[in-house]
Amino acid sequence: MRGMADENLWAVVPAGGAGTRLWPLSRAAAPKFLHDLGGTGRSLLQATYDRLVPLVGDRLLVVTGAAHAEAVSGQLDALPTANVVAEPSPRDSMAAIGLAAAIIERQDPDAVMGSFAADHVIADPEAFRACVSEAAAVARTGVLVTLGIEPDFPSTGFGYIRLAERLEDFPTAHAVAEFVEKPDATTAAGYVASGEYRWNAGMFVARASVVLDLLAENHPDLAAGVRAIAADPTRMDEIWPGLTKIAIDHAVAEPAAAAGRVAVVPGAFGWEDIGDFEALSDLLPAGADGMKVLGDAAAVLAIDSTGLVVAGTGRTVAVLGLTDVVVVDTGDALLVTTTEHAQDVKAVVQALKDSGRSELT
Amino acid sequence: MRGMADENLWAVVPAGGAGTRLWPLSRAAAPKFLHDLGGTGRSLLQATYDRLVPLVGDRLLVVTGAAHAEAVSGQLDALPTANVVAEPSPRDSMAAIGLAAAIIERQDPDAVMGSFAADHVIADPEAFRACVSEAAAVARTGVLVTLGIEPDFPSTGFGYIRLAERLEDFPTAHAVAEFVEKPDATTAAGYVASGEYRWNAGMFVARASVVLDLLAENHPDLAAGVRAIAADPTRMDEIWPGLTKIAIDHAVAEPAAAAGRVAVVPGAFGWEDIGDFEALSDLLPAGADGMKVLGDAAAVLAIDSTGLVVAGTGRTVAVLGLTDVVVVDTGDALLVTTTEHAQDVKAVVQALKDSGRSELT
Repeated sequence: MRGMADENLWAVVPAGGAGTRLWPLSRAAAPKFLHDLGGTGRSLLQATYDRLVPLVGDRLLVVTGAAHAEAVSGQLDALPTANVVAEPSPRDSMAAIGLAAAIIERQDPDAVMGSFAADHVIADPEAFRACVSEAAAVARTGVLVTLGIEPDFPSTGFGYIRLAERLEDFPTAHAVAEFVEKPDATTAAGYVASGEYRWNAGMFVARASVVLDLLAENHPDLAAGVRAIAADPTRMDEIWPGLTKIAIDHAVAEPAAAAGRVAVVPGAFGWEDIGDFEALSDLLPAGADGMKVLGDAAAVLAIDSTGLVVAGTGRTVAVLGLTDVVVVDTGDALLVTTTEHAQDVKAVVQALKDSGRSELT
Repeated sequence: MRGMADENLWAVVPAGGAGTRLWPLSRAAAPKFLHDLGGTGRSLLQATYDRLVPLVGDRLLVVTGAAHAEAVSGQLDALPTANVVAEPSPRDSMAAIGLAAAIIERQDPDAVMGSFAADHVIADPEAFRACVSEAAAVARTGVLVTLGIEPDFPSTGFGYIRLAERLEDFPTAHAVAEFVEKPDATTAAGYVASGEYRWNAGMFVARASVVLDLLAENHPDLAAGVRAIAADPTRMDEIWPGLTKIAIDHAVAEPAAAAGRVAVVPGAFGWEDIGDFEALSDLLPAGADGMKVLGDAAAVLAIDSTGLVVAGTGRTVAVLGLTDVVVVDTGDALLVTTTEHAQDVKAVVQALKDSGRSELT
């Protein structure tokens, strides 16, 4: 087994979500974690794997929809196929992560697990791993530990974590006072100015048994269900469809925070959640002509234009006289919009569904 | 022979010009006259043919580049192949039309010919034919007759024809005072307000012998050259490359006007020269969603957008939140611009040539 750094640390990588606002690049059939959105030659899933392997070796489970299990295994050829857990149907994040926790708990009752989405971008993997290592150490004390991202700007798109007192035994960890929902712009500005808040990126580290015990306190049927599947995987199809659909934040993290059982390790490692084309554009460097390109830059000709071109077909894409334009060229669908309308791309997907073109979504 | 209306009227259809401002729809390899820009199911060339056949039957010659002769014959399957005259190389409009005049003159020394570009759109073919018939009658008196288009607006994109006195023997014809070049906006407004000016659409009617005799007065070598080729087509490759390159306006029309030998028949038949995507957009009706589509409208999804989509590949084209956008989707190239930049599309073509991608132009 590789990854000697921490013999009982496991990683769980939930790989879900269609990335609707990244249509037509991201589809239900080819969600964003399968795409190389950073232009690095590795998909977001592969980059997530690369980032975690030095910490966990192959103590890594990917939990994904049955439809994507083959694609996930195909992209992660060094990962044993058994480490890809296929959900028969979407039951929200608690069922997915809870099942992974139950599988890990059976292999090592003392295991600590970290959960890290498959579709995030992290600029500084070493800083990330240092943060996870501290979180793992804190997690061994029996609490749930979140990673709290140093805010770059007063985002209204993320939830926040309010820091409480420092935990003296660790280099940077704090207790968590509370989780707060996505704020309005004024509130967000206040959060950032105060220095007391971090972005909630949905990444946490805890003992697998702590996750399941916290779950058992709040949703005993769900905890029992995932433990039963882990004990006998042949019962998956029988039990899974009946599991409660709930997000892990509501099922475990918020009740634990209210009970004072959550800590946070602050981190500044260049985290990005590429939720839409504006975020993708922010991530990419501009070319000499002012245009940002994901894909083959030689296929793009931009004159008096700025914005983002996703060149996905090998066709020449010429853009003339447009500011902050977004052009996404794929084999069966083309999107033309602006970064200002990045959030509205989901309306296109909805309109396609409404007009009977679901096969494109 | 069909077309009994006027047994010695011939039509010449020069089919040339790459339509650079309509790239990537129009290419050197597939110029605009081969495309169905009106969304009518017939290419501009075919529509030109359809419009002329009731007047001339198969007394119709298309003069085109050797590279396009096969495509022209393919689109005009009712036209004898011999009626497609292939130029070995581009020698400008006088050589092309002069050669056609010489071919016609040999078949019928009294023939009247009309020259009509292959890439114009005419909304009212009957009004057009009435205008041509009157022009043919005037042309039999030995003058060169132009069609003068009733201006829709003070265009700065066309040359104008200033009317002189009415010709009493004909319903609507006038003498021509002068041809004037493309005016500035103020001058154009004055022209239109005066009522004395018509657009010069480059369409004229004259005896073939008159065209050649006028040419002989100004460019005797050119007149002799095209007559020699008409007499012995096997001499084409020997003579053609040496012919003077000059536009028919300068070679014949302007000298004849100065000599008082040009008449004009005013016409109002919904003439359009689709020179760029703004003109194409003006021509097409808007859909319920505000977007104009050339091609399969069902493939286009427009939300909060106006402009023009040329849907040429069967792919779904989604446009979100853009005003006066122009999206031209073809198999190997995509253009995204706005109607405001319609004239600048030729800069894209030039940039492609400069960067070694001439195969796309």
